[in-house]
Amino acid sequence: MPIESAAIRWSGDRLALLDQRALPHESRWLTISDARSAADAIRDMVVRGAPAIGITAAYGLAMEAANQGDNVSLASLKNAIATLAASRPTAVNLFWALERLERVAGTLTGTALVEALNADAEAIHREDLAANQRMGELGAALLPQDSVVYTHCNTGALATGGHGTALGIVRSAWQQGRIRGVVAGETRPWLQGARLTSWELLNDNIPVTLVADSAAGLMMQQGKVQAVVVGADRITANGDTANKIGTYNLAVLARHHGLPFIVAAPLSTLDPALDNGSLIEIEERDGAEVRSIQGKAVAPAGCPAYNPAFDVTPAALITAIVTERGVIENPDCERIAAHLASV
Amino acid sequence: MPIESAAIRWSGDRLALLDQRALPHESRWLTISDARSAADAIRDMVVRGAPAIGITAAYGLAMEAANQGDNVSLASLKNAIATLAASRPTAVNLFWALERLERVAGTLTGTALVEALNADAEAIHREDLAANQRMGELGAALLPQDSVVYTHCNTGALATGGHGTALGIVRSAWQQGRIRGVVAGETRPWLQGARLTSWELLNDNIPVTLVADSAAGLMMQQGKVQAVVVGADRITANGDTANKIGTYNLAVLARHHGLPFIVAAPLSTLDPALDNGSLIEIEERDGAEVRSIQGKAVAPAGCPAYNPAFDVTPAALITAIVTERGVIENPDCERIAAHLASV
Repeated sequence: MPIESAAIRWSGDRLALLDQRALPHESRWLTISDARSAADAIRDMVVRGAPAIGITAAYGLAMEAANQGDNVSLASLKNAIATLAASRPTAVNLFWALERLERVAGTLTGTALVEALNADAEAIHREDLAANQRMGELGAALLPQDSVVYTHCNTGALATGGHGTALGIVRSAWQQGRIRGVVAGETRPWLQGARLTSWELLNDNIPVTLVADSAAGLMMQQGKVQAVVVGADRITANGDTANKIGTYNLAVLARHHGLPFIVAAPLSTLDPALDNGSLIEIEERDGAEVRSIQGKAVAPAGCPAYNPAFDVTPAALITAIVTERGVIENPDCERIAAHLASV
Repeated sequence: MPIESAAIRWSGDRLALLDQRALPHESRWLTISDARSAADAIRDMVVRGAPAIGITAAYGLAMEAANQGDNVSLASLKNAIATLAASRPTAVNLFWALERLERVAGTLTGTALVEALNADAEAIHREDLAANQRMGELGAALLPQDSVVYTHCNTGALATGGHGTALGIVRSAWQQGRIRGVVAGETRPWLQGARLTSWELLNDNIPVTLVADSAAGLMMQQGKVQAVVVGADRITANGDTANKIGTYNLAVLARHHGLPFIVAAPLSTLDPALDNGSLIEIEERDGAEVRSIQGKAVAPAGCPAYNPAFDVTPAALITAIVTERGVIENPDCERIAAHLASV
C-alpha cells in the first residue's frame, strides 16, 4: 500500500525518489521501476543516507520480482540482488535489507513471492520511521538543556524513512524545548549539510547556522556548540563507526573539548560480523568531486585528488550510540553484544 | 626599481597584482595606482596572504605619496594610511608594513618622502623573499625524512614576496629530497588550497594530492601524512597563532596523532603587543561565501551562515614556530621574547 516520506514515495507498486542532487534548488522526482534503476539511483546519489539506501534497495527488489511475474523465484532474482548490493559498498543497511528480503523470499515463487517482498519492503520503510522516532526520544534526553548541537552530513527525513537518525534526535529535542538550535557543517565534497540539512531544518523552522567544516574547532573552542550528533553507515562489533568523511575530525575535536559525541543509527546499522573498523571497506569516490563543486571546477584540471567518502571513528571517542532499542554508553564489544542480545 | 614575484609586479612606480580570485582558470593582472585601489584589492581578496597584503599596502602608500607630489607629508597621507589599515583586520603584517613606512616618512616631505617610501616598500618586498628562503631552509630540517606534509590554505609564492612561508618550507624540503609529497586541504570557503596551492605545486612539479578539509583526520589515522605545516596571520606574545579557519582543527588532529605541527611566519607576523590569542580580532566575512561557491549557490537562499575567516591555535598545540631568525620550539612567552631579543 502507498507510503510517503520526505524523499521516498511508494505507490504500492512503483517508487518515486526525490533527486537529492538537485536540492535545494529544485524538487525533481524520478520514477524507479526495477532493480537496475534503483541501483543506479543509489550509486548516482539520487538517494543517499544509509537507511534510505536500504529502503530503496528493498523496493527495487520488490519491483523486480513483480516485473518477473509468475516465474519469479529467489534464484531468478540473484542478478538483481547482486546489482543492488554492488551499488555502494559502505552502508551496511543496504546488505541488511537485501538479506532480510532473501530470507522472506525463501522458497516462495510467483505471486506469493511478489506479495511477500512487497509487504516486507513496506515494513522496512515503516519500521525505519518508527525506529527514528524512538531514537529521537532516546537521544534528545542525552543533550544538555539549552544546548546548540553540531551535526554533519544529512541524517534527516531525506536520508531515512522519515524523521531522521541524528537529525531525528535534533527534531525531537527541538520539539521538547531542549535545544536552542543547530550548527550544520556543510560536509564537503557533496555538501549534504549545506544543501539538505539546512533545507530540512529551515522547512521545520528549527534555527540552523551553516558553517564550513573547518569552523567546527572554532565553534567548540568558543563555546558555541555543546554536543555533536551524527549518524552512521556501519557500526562494528566493538562500536567503531563508519560515517561520512569528516566525522572522525569532529569526534577528535569533541573529545579535545570535552563535548558529548553521540551516534544515532538503527539496529540495522550494527554489523557484528566485523570485529572492528579497520575491516570496513571505505568507498573511494572520483577525485572530480573534490576538483569541482556542482559542476564548477575549483582546482586545476587533472590535479590529483583523494576522495574517501567515509571515515571510521574509534569507539573510544564515542560517548553513546543510540538505536531504537536504547542507548549504548561508552560502547565496546561487551556492551554492543549485550545490546544486540536484549529485547 | 622593478621587482617581480609570482603575484606582485612592481614597475618602480606602478603595481600589478595577479587577481587570485580568477585562479586557477585565468591569469588576469590588475593595475593598482593608489592607496584606495590597493585597499580595495586587499579587501576583495585580489591579493591575499599576510605577507603579500603587507607588501601591497606598502606599495599602495608609496604610490599615494607619489600621486600627491611636491606637497606630500606624513600628515597628508593619514587618510590613505587609515584606508589601507581598514582593508582587513587580522593579518598583522599589514599594520607592521604601514607603521614601518610611517617611521621612514618621519618629517620628510615632497620628493624626499616619495623616494624614501618607494625604497622602503621595495625593501619590504625583497626582505620578505629573503626571509622566506631562510625559513624554508630552517623549516625543512624539522620534517621527517621521506615524509608527506599536510598543508592548509595558500602560503606560497602567491601569498608572499616569493617562495612562500609554509609552502616555502615545502619547496625547500622538496629541493633537498627530504619529502615525498604534499597533501593540500582545499580550504573552504575560499578554496585557497584547491585553487592556489595545488596550482603552485603542479607548476613546480611537486607531487600534490588535493583533499576536502574533512579528510585530514583520516589521512593522519591512516599514516598518509607525517607532519602539518601552516602559515600565520598573527602570533601573540605567548605563541598563540591566528591563521586561516581550519588551522585549529588541524592542530588538534595533529596532536591527537602525535604529528609535528609547524607554523612558518616572518618576524613581522609576531605581535608581542598582544598577550594571547583571545585578544586577536577574528575577521568575520559574509555568510554568502559559505552559501555559495564561486558564485554558485550550494545552500538555500537566506540560510543563516557563520563565516569566520580565521581561528586561533593555542601555543600549546604548536611544535615549532619558524621565522627567518630561527626556530622556536614549544613556543611560550619566554621563548618568543628571547627570539625577538636575539640577533
